Amino acid sequence: MTRRPGSPPTSPTKTGLGQEELRRNNLSALLTRVHLHGAISRASLTRELGLNRSTIGALAAELEDLGLVSERLPDAVRRSGRPSLVLEARRDNTVVGVDIGVDRIVTALVALGGEVLLQRQRPHAPGEHDVEHVIESAAQMIEEVLAARPDVRCLGVGVSVPGAVREADGLVRFAPNLGWVDQPFTEKLSHRLGRPVFTANDADLGVLAEHLRGAAVGYSDVAYLNGSVGIGGGFLVGGVPLSGARGYAGEVGHLLVDGAATEPCRCGNVGCWETKAGENHLLVAAGRLPGGGPDGVAEVIAAAAAGDQRATEALEQVAEWIGVGLRAVINIFDPEIIVLGGSLAALWRSRQAVIESVVDRWTLMTPRRDVLIRSSAFGLDSPWRGAAELVFAPLLADPAGVLDRVASGAVAAR
Amino acid sequence: MTRRPGSPPTSPTKTGLGQEELRRNNLSALLTRVHLHGAISRASLTRELGLNRSTIGALAAELEDLGLVSERLPDAVRRSGRPSLVLEARRDNTVVGVDIGVDRIVTALVALGGEVLLQRQRPHAPGEHDVEHVIESAAQMIEEVLAARPDVRCLGVGVSVPGAVREADGLVRFAPNLGWVDQPFTEKLSHRLGRPVFTANDADLGVLAEHLRGAAVGYSDVAYLNGSVGIGGGFLVGGVPLSGARGYAGEVGHLLVDGAATEPCRCGNVGCWETKAGENHLLVAAGRLPGGGPDGVAEVIAAAAAGDQRATEALEQVAEWIGVGLRAVINIFDPEIIVLGGSLAALWRSRQAVIESVVDRWTLMTPRRDVLIRSSAFGLDSPWRGAAELVFAPLLADPAGVLDRVASGAVAAR
Repeated sequence: MTRRPGSPPTSPTKTGLGQEELRRNNLSALLTRVHLHGAISRASLTRELGLNRSTIGALAAELEDLGLVSERLPDAVRRSGRPSLVLEARRDNTVVGVDIGVDRIVTALVALGGEVLLQRQRPHAPGEHDVEHVIESAAQMIEEVLAARPDVRCLGVGVSVPGAVREADGLVRFAPNLGWVDQPFTEKLSHRLGRPVFTANDADLGVLAEHLRGAAVGYSDVAYLNGSVGIGGGFLVGGVPLSGARGYAGEVGHLLVDGAATEPCRCGNVGCWETKAGENHLLVAAGRLPGGGPDGVAEVIAAAAAGDQRATEALEQVAEWIGVGLRAVINIFDPEIIVLGGSLAALWRSRQAVIESVVDRWTLMTPRRDVLIRSSAFGLDSPWRGAAELVFAPLLADPAGVLDRVASGAVAAR
Repeated sequence: MTRRPGSPPTSPTKTGLGQEELRRNNLSALLTRVHLHGAISRASLTRELGLNRSTIGALAAELEDLGLVSERLPDAVRRSGRPSLVLEARRDNTVVGVDIGVDRIVTALVALGGEVLLQRQRPHAPGEHDVEHVIESAAQMIEEVLAARPDVRCLGVGVSVPGAVREADGLVRFAPNLGWVDQPFTEKLSHRLGRPVFTANDADLGVLAEHLRGAAVGYSDVAYLNGSVGIGGGFLVGGVPLSGARGYAGEVGHLLVDGAATEPCRCGNVGCWETKAGENHLLVAAGRLPGGGPDGVAEVIAAAAAGDQRATEALEQVAEWIGVGLRAVINIFDPEIIVLGGSLAALWRSRQAVIESVVDRWTLMTPRRDVLIRSSAFGLDSPWRGAAELVFAPLLADPAGVLDRVASGAVAAR
């Protein structure tokens, strides 16, 4: 299943008691604090959450019983009197974050608190990114990661895919760059693993990761653009993820930007933004073979820096088209910040002046200087980092309820 | 000033008392009910709002004291016993809704409860849509409307403009089709009238009107597209108006759809959607003069129906481009419903099959049949109807507080 971060968990234990709900909200606030911002003393928690000492003590004890946090004495006791215990997330609570890329699969074991315990990457075998091969490869990689750390418990698997994911059941509606249409990917992978699987679109997960821990912390109107073979968009609008009626919003890669174009897009159309600003257009324009991925993009940038004229011209041309797309994003969303991820981050660093000049020339109401444009904090890793947060989200919202369900196998049966 | 509907009013009387806040929320709920849905008995209110009879009685009495509602006996008393009094909005509470169009100004006196008491329209004098002329014309028309009804009280003036309006102070940042840049329109009109003025973008107001009373009642992911010389977009995302960081979001008219175009857009660019699907492109392609407005569009549609080949070809071509833009809107927002307003409504009714076939051909994940496409319920009137609702919004949120401020002149001084 896929779930939007921030959506309320459907708790089977909900009794309608105000007291019970209050306790759940407070547990949630405390666990979210240590998950996102690290170790903290009881005394600081009392101040930050506006709760009294005995309430904090009771909540901490409950989270400790659940195995989610541990308490220890502070590193240095500064003055006499009873020291305030320090709470931190227990890193033996983990999730697996997975990125199904167009060229590779990444798996990572991520602990509560955000630490990445280990990470694996494997390219797709040539011609083997059909859904059955990908499910089997991903499942094996997930099992390897978990086998390497038998000392931790796994609370679920989050998967990023480069396509449109139906919010209701994680069906991959359309992933043109993998050639998938209407694939019940999530159901099949969950069945194969015997574990709960949460799937969402790569750019929607990218904006989540960047908002929670990366380049967009503290901003509520955020555009995250993820460049690879395609270009995906993930958006926060007034702090709320743009999801759309069915979960398919944000497909900026298929904006028509060139009515005169003839190169076909894998979506079936011509003139889409990603055919002009995606990796393969750059590679081909620079005289390389398509399919080179982020490494190919890096090679073109290096060649241009070394004086390769064709690489330089290709970069300038692609930078112009990146500017055209950013202009559309600014005119439609008026964001505070645009975060560029995947290969767009490298292209931005390489050709920032060209991109800025196009944006400045053609942006209507929002002078570009009012919009921050930044590289992603996590580079190619934002999608799987967001996928990990997707799994943590229901735990953070209702720690006791989710662990009850994990223990009873109710979640794993999905 | 401009204020987003639904944003909390800044009440100077807020004391922090929970009881006081509760009373304000209940007054708001009751007045909103009669404003949007008409007369209702106390008994039905008790059920709908979940409040007891005595609370409803007290709230009704307070709103009656404020002159906002009246109570009467029901039209027919069906059974013995004490009849339940019926509440309705008092129509002597009014606002003026104004639409500054590219070709004309509309003013309307709108009563609490939504009835349009009277309406005036006047074309701009040739060459006279500079900001000073428009302010003077609009002010005279507003005064005429109010002079015609000395028996009502006016709670403020709401204005729709075809451009980007800064949320903070109603400054018109950029209205390319009027030739305005950074005009303190709201401040000047308010000063000229000695009344509070609330200004917002035409399409943002259109989506508000359609959502509250028109074609999009009950939907929370809504795209409203308003066609005139330009094309404006107003969006609800998960029930929340898309405003952007500075209030400039939604400018879909300047999406680049044709990289090969040469006709300049008034924004300074080429290839913008509105240069392909706006009124003037149709008129010129059909061999007419630009600037004919909605009447010109209607004439072209009638000529095509009568066999005019050039008009037919122009309509087909514009319908294709409308489809291209709708496709972008669907791919970006995945809305439940698209409402077409202004001249786009007439073009939709005339060439629905062409538009649908383009949308079907090129829409990625959301089969078009899942997206409702409808004509606006209010045609050309959505923007000024939304402008009226913009003025009612703070009254509905805090009836007593706003009337206090109106009485003391605190609002009029803005």
